[in-house]
Amino acid sequence: MYTIDMNCDLGESFGRFTIGRDEEVIPYITSANVACGYHASDPMVMGKTVQIAKKNGVHVGAHIGFPDLMGFGRRNMVISPEEAKTYTMYQMGALMGFLAAEHMTLSHVKPHGAFYNMAAKDYQMSLAICEGIKAIDSKVALMGLAGSEMIRAAKAVGIPVIQEVFADRAYEEDGTLVARSKPGAMIEDENEAIQRVIRMVKDRKVNAITGKDVDIQPDSVCVHGDGKAALLFVKKIREALEREGILIK
Amino acid sequence: MYTIDMNCDLGESFGRFTIGRDEEVIPYITSANVACGYHASDPMVMGKTVQIAKKNGVHVGAHIGFPDLMGFGRRNMVISPEEAKTYTMYQMGALMGFLAAEHMTLSHVKPHGAFYNMAAKDYQMSLAICEGIKAIDSKVALMGLAGSEMIRAAKAVGIPVIQEVFADRAYEEDGTLVARSKPGAMIEDENEAIQRVIRMVKDRKVNAITGKDVDIQPDSVCVHGDGKAALLFVKKIREALEREGILIK
Amino acid sequence: MYTIDMNCDLGESFGRFTIGRDEEVIPYITSANVACGYHASDPMVMGKTVQIAKKNGVHVGAHIGFPDLMGFGRRNMVISPEEAKTYTMYQMGALMGFLAAEHMTLSHVKPHGAFYNMAAKDYQMSLAICEGIKAIDSKVALMGLAGSEMIRAAKAVGIPVIQEVFADRAYEEDGTLVARSKPGAMIEDENEAIQRVIRMVKDRKVNAITGKDVDIQPDSVCVHGDGKAALLFVKKIREALEREGILIK
Amino acid sequence: MYTIDMNCDLGESFGRFTIGRDEEVIPYITSANVACGYHASDPMVMGKTVQIAKKNGVHVGAHIGFPDLMGFGRRNMVISPEEAKTYTMYQMGALMGFLAAEHMTLSHVKPHGAFYNMAAKDYQMSLAICEGIKAIDSKVALMGLAGSEMIRAAKAVGIPVIQEVFADRAYEEDGTLVARSKPGAMIEDENEAIQRVIRMVKDRKVNAITGKDVDIQPDSVCVHGDGKAALLFVKKIREALEREGILIK
Repeated sequence: MYTIDMNCDLGESFGRFTIGRDEEVIPYITSANVACGYHASDPMVMGKTVQIAKKNGVHVGAHIGFPDLMGFGRRNMVISPEEAKTYTMYQMGALMGFLAAEHMTLSHVKPHGAFYNMAAKDYQMSLAICEGIKAIDSKVALMGLAGSEMIRAAKAVGIPVIQEVFADRAYEEDGTLVARSKPGAMIEDENEAIQRVIRMVKDRKVNAITGKDVDIQPDSVCVHGDGKAALLFVKKIREALEREGILIK
Repeated sequence: MYTIDMNCDLGESFGRFTIGRDEEVIPYITSANVACGYHASDPMVMGKTVQIAKKNGVHVGAHIGFPDLMGFGRRNMVISPEEAKTYTMYQMGALMGFLAAEHMTLSHVKPHGAFYNMAAKDYQMSLAICEGIKAIDSKVALMGLAGSEMIRAAKAVGIPVIQEVFADRAYEEDGTLVARSKPGAMIEDENEAIQRVIRMVKDRKVNAITGKDVDIQPDSVCVHGDGKAALLFVKKIREALEREGILIK
Repeated sequence: MYTIDMNCDLGESFGRFTIGRDEEVIPYITSANVACGYHASDPMVMGKTVQIAKKNGVHVGAHIGFPDLMGFGRRNMVISPEEAKTYTMYQMGALMGFLAAEHMTLSHVKPHGAFYNMAAKDYQMSLAICEGIKAIDSKVALMGLAGSEMIRAAKAVGIPVIQEVFADRAYEEDGTLVARSKPGAMIEDENEAIQRVIRMVKDRKVNAITGKDVDIQPDSVCVHGDGKAALLFVKKIREALEREGILIK
Repeated sequence: MYTIDMNCDLGESFGRFTIGRDEEVIPYITSANVACGYHASDPMVMGKTVQIAKKNGVHVGAHIGFPDLMGFGRRNMVISPEEAKTYTMYQMGALMGFLAAEHMTLSHVKPHGAFYNMAAKDYQMSLAICEGIKAIDSKVALMGLAGSEMIRAAKAVGIPVIQEVFADRAYEEDGTLVARSKPGAMIEDENEAIQRVIRMVKDRKVNAITGKDVDIQPDSVCVHGDGKAALLFVKKIREALEREGILIK
């Protein structure tokens, strides 16, 4: 039996600033990555998002970001390992408070934006994140780019891993994502994107941008809920995966 | 046997900005109120402060503040009960992460500055704070102004209370603190301040600014560690209390 | 000849967080109040908004707010007169830089949200704001609630005033706005709202919620551009005013 | 006649967080770089610092930083040229408001910390900063590392330059500073540091860490005022330079 998790970034609104269609996308996913007040979100938003996740029976992870609200955590910042560790702990703990209030537990931690991209290539930063997770709760998984330094660090530290794959992104031969600035980085055709995910799940292979097949371990596929087109795609990919007999869980 | 707790606000530094002589004052106190990143502190500071508290065998509470770093949380802000509740939960959860990493538990929550002063007089705000605490852990105490709305709310919600008294502040007949802007608000004479605390502990009475004695319930006395004079006073009051056979715990 | 200015709050987006339909509403207004990074906006947004204002030949004012991004500057904060003055100067200066780059000058300063509401009733706070404006440029006007303490302070300090009126808000007999929490605070009927503005401009009178007519001095009417309905209303009120022979300038 | 400017970073306090001994160091310097609220400072601090600078007859520059208060602007952030330009304009404009209130003009702009270090090596970032300066006022100088990309960009854009040298830092052969992490990066011996500056001023040469002499153009020397030792060194270097017949201006 093939299975895959579908994860989506939620709870990215801040004060009067609204982002995302959280309530519309959540029925189609199995894991929610909730922003924790650094790159997005605030306590009001976190409380509500956790409640929505509970109502929909969805796993909740901490979507930890750089302290860069103005840049939405998408700008590389050179922080020390000790900063990476404590920023992880702070955001993770803050979300765990809201989860405790709903008698839920934290499923995973997923770095956001530039924190994710930097950690994927930086073993020391990934180690610091994983040590922060383990210091609080060694049963909480790290969700990170399949095959990246994040996964390697989580295994070294001894916490569970959730390897994440992308439907709409091209891969390099080494399993990293093709930079968005390069031609061909995005898989524009929806059907092709879906076929790629099905192949990842069933064959554990993805065709890199060079044409060569590379191995991949897909535990969870990332989807988006921040627009009408994104929402339609989530429904479409979910239906396609189920049609193939893949269990979404 | 008379007993009293001595509490002090710690972990108020932020980034390169340093406040307080935490390591010098901590040997003399029994409870540390650690700032949680809203009015002061950051994850690096929180992590270190929790470690110092552990080394010194001191109880740790969350010193929760308004989201006003520029004003150090000392400016009244009109926030909704839902905001008061979720801001409490966010800051409390964040600190609990660092405590979990040291195998410690959160002892109490103490609102800071304007949050404290507003809640002392505002039952609805106090209720919201206490509901936030209870939602996460009903064994965590609220530390608040002795005899204030905070204490009344905590009892109504059903969480433990720690009634706080001040050595260096004059009291009104209703048990509230005399506003700093009024003459006589501060007890300038150190010996008088110490005698007042001893009387509070032994007789459960304090002489109000009007001259009338009022009842008071002193569970913890607030001391400061942000200057040389403050430090000397902490040692002095501790010695005086112990000389009177009062157990500091 | 009757004239009135139409003002709208613009440039309220922040980083990836988008608010308002600035480009759609700007052709219908004559003055833009641009947020300056405290309650909303950032340097990228400010630069673009000033350029849009220039292209549309619209006056630009500084929409100064409390340092409360999380609350969008809508929460009362108790700040000192010196803080009110320097916060005014900081935000005003920041916007003037972007205006200088487009060879434009600052037309006015309008406090935002809770800063506006508090100043309307607080002469000392209003004085501090006006002193901040005058310290930088005594030709810059204060835009404030018609007949309020803001207007009185601006006259005392000796800077120009722009008295602002609201189409969709009920007035108390003393010329203040009926609090949003009270029934009847909002004028729901669009035609009634428009008729009220026409009467304010032509007769300098508005019918208070008590039924009594009160004098009013309408230099500018506030409109909104943050939704489809708001946009339609802007067009409608502009057309109605012009049909009445009122010059929008 | 040899001349040199002595510059120091001032106005770095924030709210209740105090940094630096501004009033003690300012009598010994000729240019103050005032933080503008991004990496440090707030409007109250800026207003006071400008007044102190005026009283001491010191030139005022905008010390512009990354929006990273928690990191004191010392962490590299990957921002776009448009962000670099508008962040420059925002901070510069904000300070110009306070200067206008004292009938002073802005002398220069100096990037701070990581912004300085990145711009020194990144011509595109430097161009963006200089274009921001020129957009507001082409008479305002860029103060930057002598011989760096900042100086090259300022010349290309057509704004004045102030080439800055360091007494206590070792130089590489290409005129860049030796990274603090490398051995020998700091000139520990005070007399050696002073002799190096005298030689830079008189001979326009500095001995690189490799032993080779390199050309240098010293318009201003950076000093610090954030500690007792720093203050003593400022007095000492000023006296030594004057004894050599070098005019501090």
